[in-house]
Amino acid sequence: MNTSTLRKWRHKLHEIIYEADTPLGKAFDIVLLVLIILSVVFVMLESVPKIDAKYHDLLNIGEWIITIFFTIEYIARIITVKRPTNYIFSFYGIIDLLSTIPLYLSMILTGSNYLLTVRSLRLLRIFRILKITRYIGEATRLRRAMLLSRPKILVFLFTVVIIAIIAGTIMYLVEGEESGFTSIPHSVYWCIVTLTTVGYGDISPITPLGQFIASVIMIMGYGIIAVPTGIVTAEYGRASQDVQHNTQACPGCGIGGHKDNARFCFKCGEELNPEELTM
Amino acid sequence: MNTSTLRKWRHKLHEIIYEADTPLGKAFDIVLLVLIILSVVFVMLESVPKIDAKYHDLLNIGEWIITIFFTIEYIARIITVKRPTNYIFSFYGIIDLLSTIPLYLSMILTGSNYLLTVRSLRLLRIFRILKITRYIGEATRLRRAMLLSRPKILVFLFTVVIIAIIAGTIMYLVEGEESGFTSIPHSVYWCIVTLTTVGYGDISPITPLGQFIASVIMIMGYGIIAVPTGIVTAEYGRASQDVQHNTQACPGCGIGGHKDNARFCFKCGEELNPEELTM
Amino acid sequence: MNTSTLRKWRHKLHEIIYEADTPLGKAFDIVLLVLIILSVVFVMLESVPKIDAKYHDLLNIGEWIITIFFTIEYIARIITVKRPTNYIFSFYGIIDLLSTIPLYLSMILTGSNYLLTVRSLRLLRIFRILKITRYIGEATRLRRAMLLSRPKILVFLFTVVIIAIIAGTIMYLVEGEESGFTSIPHSVYWCIVTLTTVGYGDISPITPLGQFIASVIMIMGYGIIAVPTGIVTAEYGRASQDVQHNTQACPGCGIGGHKDNARFCFKCGEELNPEELTM
Amino acid sequence: MNTSTLRKWRHKLHEIIYEADTPLGKAFDIVLLVLIILSVVFVMLESVPKIDAKYHDLLNIGEWIITIFFTIEYIARIITVKRPTNYIFSFYGIIDLLSTIPLYLSMILTGSNYLLTVRSLRLLRIFRILKITRYIGEATRLRRAMLLSRPKILVFLFTVVIIAIIAGTIMYLVEGEESGFTSIPHSVYWCIVTLTTVGYGDISPITPLGQFIASVIMIMGYGIIAVPTGIVTAEYGRASQDVQHNTQACPGCGIGGHKDNARFCFKCGEELNPEELTM
Repeated sequence: MNTSTLRKWRHKLHEIIYEADTPLGKAFDIVLLVLIILSVVFVMLESVPKIDAKYHDLLNIGEWIITIFFTIEYIARIITVKRPTNYIFSFYGIIDLLSTIPLYLSMILTGSNYLLTVRSLRLLRIFRILKITRYIGEATRLRRAMLLSRPKILVFLFTVVIIAIIAGTIMYLVEGEESGFTSIPHSVYWCIVTLTTVGYGDISPITPLGQFIASVIMIMGYGIIAVPTGIVTAEYGRASQDVQHNTQACPGCGIGGHKDNARFCFKCGEELNPEELTM
Repeated sequence: MNTSTLRKWRHKLHEIIYEADTPLGKAFDIVLLVLIILSVVFVMLESVPKIDAKYHDLLNIGEWIITIFFTIEYIARIITVKRPTNYIFSFYGIIDLLSTIPLYLSMILTGSNYLLTVRSLRLLRIFRILKITRYIGEATRLRRAMLLSRPKILVFLFTVVIIAIIAGTIMYLVEGEESGFTSIPHSVYWCIVTLTTVGYGDISPITPLGQFIASVIMIMGYGIIAVPTGIVTAEYGRASQDVQHNTQACPGCGIGGHKDNARFCFKCGEELNPEELTM
Repeated sequence: MNTSTLRKWRHKLHEIIYEADTPLGKAFDIVLLVLIILSVVFVMLESVPKIDAKYHDLLNIGEWIITIFFTIEYIARIITVKRPTNYIFSFYGIIDLLSTIPLYLSMILTGSNYLLTVRSLRLLRIFRILKITRYIGEATRLRRAMLLSRPKILVFLFTVVIIAIIAGTIMYLVEGEESGFTSIPHSVYWCIVTLTTVGYGDISPITPLGQFIASVIMIMGYGIIAVPTGIVTAEYGRASQDVQHNTQACPGCGIGGHKDNARFCFKCGEELNPEELTM
Repeated sequence: MNTSTLRKWRHKLHEIIYEADTPLGKAFDIVLLVLIILSVVFVMLESVPKIDAKYHDLLNIGEWIITIFFTIEYIARIITVKRPTNYIFSFYGIIDLLSTIPLYLSMILTGSNYLLTVRSLRLLRIFRILKITRYIGEATRLRRAMLLSRPKILVFLFTVVIIAIIAGTIMYLVEGEESGFTSIPHSVYWCIVTLTTVGYGDISPITPLGQFIASVIMIMGYGIIAVPTGIVTAEYGRASQDVQHNTQACPGCGIGGHKDNARFCFKCGEELNPEELTM
């Protein structure tokens, strides 16, 4: 097995793991998608006392099979990428690692409950696989509209928080502890529950004045909700123009989002798969 | 009665049952509309213990009259259509069958509670009759805007579900079983209730940290709700251009949605009612 | 006092009562506005047991003063209009009558509780007076956008009701009576509470399957809420073009909404105030 | 120290306190931002019984340090502005004073609980400092869109209140006191809770008729919420055109919002910092 064969083989593997343009690449992504969803379903079922009592061993075995697959995949990703450190410290590299290690750690550390959340982070990997679907264009457009709207929405949410703090303080003074408004932070929590129109009803005003102020807050929240919508609508309209559908990933650092006519990675300068262009 | 008369008679019946351009067709649709609504009201009233105890026989008789009418109508639809199998296996063909058989089945199978839901599916038939109203243009435009928005809204709802699973897992760890967050699926359910701003209050966070995280989830949900709105608004604007108001249905396969100047069915190629054109 | 003086005097009175272009007309509208709000506040306060016990006589006297003023105003409206019957049977004519008679009726009929609602209908009169404000243009534009959106919103709400009935039937079968889903109408009520994201929590699903279906309904409701918003946004954009600011009312039948250059009432053909044109 | 030096020094101080174009001005604003947030956090923590019992002295000392800083800042603002009275009676001048005095007052007046709310008003000062961030353009655009939408939103909210009063009165008659609808104001409160889709569940209809009317109100609220969104979207689109990013404040009266090429204050005519132009 000379270097050329090895390189070609590594190249092939890169294409399967990182891209979705070939039948094998698509098949790999679908298998991965199913395993990710299964592993999250297992985590969820394990937390249900009744189901865990009955199928504990089965879930455990399933967990191990998936973890081993994820381990192999993680290693394969490192091998096939030309600049492994770039991949390892990228967003998806960290998510991939976090998806794999919790089970290993749980053998060392007992009662490490918080690994649960880490395991559910596996779901974030789905966003990477989404490139196989026809929805990539939509997702890109959505993400772009959200990025464009971000500063405005932050200013808006910031205003909402300030309103919640001031209104929460007023309600704390008006209603007092008997109505459940036991402290200002608690009052602010109630105010956010009301402004966002969630309305649990765990705390609710009892005094007439409190109910009047609450009504004003609600109507305000009702009028305010229009603002982010207006923003996103305007930005979404702008973002709908040009979106790229290319699923190519850099063989050097594994990053995606290259232009259709790109020949070199925009991040690490590695040449993008030339075969694909001739194919 | 020669073949020509039979054909003409069948043709006439087809026009009454499937279309709404003639006075008789309109009258038929209105009778059908009233019967559908009545039959659903009967199903609903039957489920109220007090009313059922008092008027059981009356409701039963009403049910039977409507079912017999539906049976006759279903047979008539099969007879007057040139390609009955096309109709029988179409969406509305199946709905029509499902609207008719539950009562017959309930005589054979006792305690078949689930036929109830099937009976309430009758309501879907209303959408077919809607062509008699002046709202058809609106409905078409709405449906088109929704179809155009579907991929984007799916990506969006998918993101919401992922957020709900991750946030639900975190809340399960933070709040624990004392606050009602008894398992991850239950926590995810709570998270969806909160993100969508429904907020039943059957489960609500008690610890300060849980309330803080819940506040973040709520404000996030408040900001996120803007996204589908922006999408639909943009798509609705695009879909508002050209919509057709024709109520003609193919005598061959019963399909609707033909262009105003169409002479042949776009699906089965059958010639559309020529009389209508000369009339 | 000859006929000419009487006619002029009647004309003057018409201008004061029906229009807001003159200082006296404006003053009259403001007095009326205050009295309408006061009368509704009185009705509300009367229903609070504590306040009624304390200030019953005071509220009663206030009620009588307002009623007498309304009576005089109602008679003046009939006198100054050229075609009284047109006014009496118009929308605002009926509202004006309903605003006046409840107190008189309450003397004859004792315990006539339902006159309360009638009295609160007085608030609808505010919409007539709104012409004095600078908001008339806005209100007109809003009303027009709503009228344009009406057929679409009706189709939409109709779809929501059908979804609620089908989903309500399913939940009735899934959850059963122990969870509070005691009948299909009750289940449909719960489903509307959920779809509209109100979420009282008086009924909420308990079984895992019920909670799963509820989650689907909520996410659906969350996606669906975007539709009317998109519609209204599109229609509002169209309705924003040309709006008229004329406050003139027909001296014949009292109807408003005339074009700026209108010389005759579009409803009864009466000539509109010629003085105003020369003034 | 001659007058020229004093003037130059005062000028420098003005630039630091009122503007954010120089490094020192930016640093000052960041320190102020941190102190404002800290002071509000202190107020909130003080209201939590457990935390107050433990860290009362610490919170008290922190409060005093911040108050002394605010006092010095307030005096500095008065000194460096050429027309102090303009500043003192401006919106931010009053907020600055209110941010400073509560602690001094609390020494004189004991049990003056309501100073709490005044202290939380400090948060409003954040909006002034926001000019240091890159979000100023967004905030300006948002504020402009909201100002443009205000009359329409007021008309809309006004309509909502009228609907709430009429529907509330009807529900009071239908449900009565047993269901918690104890008075009309209470019923109106419930109606606002429902229309705005908050839905606490502290009061909810029990009778079938009440639940039916409630369903109508909810669906109405669901359809109505689209209106303000449509308005804001339209206005936001218009307001997105031209926004200025200048952080310069007038040395005469402290007002901001000057055009980029402005040489004189648009309010008091004072010459704007000429150095800045040459720098």
